[in-house]
Amino acid sequence: MKRNGLIYAGKAKKLFLTDDEQVLWVEYLDQATALNGLKKDKVIGKGQLNNKITSRIFDYLTEQGIDHHFIQQKSPTEQIIQRLQIIPLEVVVRNVVAGSFAKRFGLEEGQELEQPIVEFYFKNDALDDPFINDEHVLFLEIASKEEIAELKQLALEINHVLRQLFDQLSILLVDFKLEFGRNSQGKITLGDEISPDTCRLWDKETSRHLDKDVYRRNIGEIVSVYEEVLDRLEQLKGGK
Amino acid sequence: MKRNGLIYAGKAKKLFLTDDEQVLWVEYLDQATALNGLKKDKVIGKGQLNNKITSRIFDYLTEQGIDHHFIQQKSPTEQIIQRLQIIPLEVVVRNVVAGSFAKRFGLEEGQELEQPIVEFYFKNDALDDPFINDEHVLFLEIASKEEIAELKQLALEINHVLRQLFDQLSILLVDFKLEFGRNSQGKITLGDEISPDTCRLWDKETSRHLDKDVYRRNIGEIVSVYEEVLDRLEQLKGGK
Ligand SMILES: Nc1ncnc2c1ncn2[C@@H]1O[C@H](COP(=O)(O)OP(=O)(O)OP(=O)(O)O)[C@@H](O)[C@H]1O
Ligand SMILES: Nc1ncnc2c1ncn2[C@@H]1O[C@H](COP(=O)(O)OP(=O)(O)OP(=O)(O)O)[C@@H](O)[C@H]1O
Ligand SMILES: [Mg+2]
Ligand SMILES: [Mg+2]
Repeated sequence: MKRNGLIYAGKAKKLFLTDDEQVLWVEYLDQATALNGLKKDKVIGKGQLNNKITSRIFDYLTEQGIDHHFIQQKSPTEQIIQRLQIIPLEVVVRNVVAGSFAKRFGLEEGQELEQPIVEFYFKNDALDDPFINDEHVLFLEIASKEEIAELKQLALEINHVLRQLFDQLSILLVDFKLEFGRNSQGKITLGDEISPDTCRLWDKETSRHLDKDVYRRNIGEIVSVYEEVLDRLEQLKGGK
Repeated sequence: MKRNGLIYAGKAKKLFLTDDEQVLWVEYLDQATALNGLKKDKVIGKGQLNNKITSRIFDYLTEQGIDHHFIQQKSPTEQIIQRLQIIPLEVVVRNVVAGSFAKRFGLEEGQELEQPIVEFYFKNDALDDPFINDEHVLFLEIASKEEIAELKQLALEINHVLRQLFDQLSILLVDFKLEFGRNSQGKITLGDEISPDTCRLWDKETSRHLDKDVYRRNIGEIVSVYEEVLDRLEQLKGGK
């Protein structure tokens, strides 16, 4: 497998073509952004950490029988993935009140939800990724009614197994964002990344933030915090 | 029937008790507000107009077999209604792109939607009536899954007959807000008002705004515009 031309330079990753048109080569970047790119910093080591964390988590999902785009880690900062037609939705699952949910309802962060809650945001930088409902998804012709149900179902299944994983790491999975796409057969498949950039992770003992909120809120340093998450994942793997 | 003590002084209406504890007496006020009360003006004649328009529209809904809280107009500015336990949702139905929908999706106002779209907003002034999804409604324990489906169904039925009514007035029903409540038997029933305060109404010939947008956007004068709507309703009734 060879890394060919760049096809997308994102805020956190670069995507390259390969010899196989169904396979993409991803490079995780040493860059942190927040507020839809308004806040932006070079963070040496972040690309490696997110690449490794995401790779381990996708391997765990494989063990749990959940389908996804991840094929293989290629280098400390690179991985190869199945190419998807990305569905322009951020599918958010919440287990605990935090972030925009806390704000929307005037609640303190930290209350556990009785039921996990799924939210859709329209992935559109120009519009600032607006929160939308199911009828908006239909209006935008992003997904059919059946696909909306499938996306929610998949998101909740992934939530179920991810909670179990993080539980073993003594980490509370507060909320997270998923992206799905359609593979060459049209099957809805989990894509993108699962990392402290895309999850809210709180240490169960100390409630310390082990995620991008340390950067968003200027309350800590990304590398040491993401290292903590990777270390716990590696210890778990070693301990098995 | 006697008008007893005031129980609620709102931005557009006052609610009073009556001798019958299941019946409330409503007075429509000469007051216009926008931006969650930030903009506020005395508008002489508005109370009368909205009381009359709402009364006529509820009478029309009766003819169409749709259940609601309206009992009778009592005076130019007053009506009596069945008391409901209001469900704290603004149920918005959209037929045409306008207002916050246009903003959310970066669209020009005016495009007809292929399907009417229903949205829920949490009626909560302190939170600025946030837009919410079905799962939020469950989280807030505002309504059950079955009730959510019923609210949407009712909203679409009401939309269907209201469009026909306004069509006869040469008015395009762009969008509108409904409030529902539970009556003493727990039945979900249409409440509040249906007026140019709560509907976007565009003249079919000229596209002129015949609704509160003339006030929100400072592009016209409430009384003459609301009078136009009432006149057309009265001509229709006379013409029958
Ligand atoms: N399997 C896949 N096939 C094709 N594209 C993918 C796949 N997985 C993720 N992507 C897309 O690759 C890009 C990853 O880049 P990055 O995460 O840096 O984007 P970004 O700048 O954050 O912008 P975005 O707001 O789109 O996430 C995203 O647009 C994502 O949707
Ligand atoms: N049948 C009913 N029984 C009880 N309350 C009702 C009924 N119909 C409407 N209401 C409530 O009466 C009030 C009407 O007052 P008004 O429309 O002036 O309120 P407001 O100041 O606009 O505040 P809101 O944001 O609650 O509408 C609203 O709170 C509305 O929910
Ligand atoms: Mg991204
Ligand atoms: Mg009101």
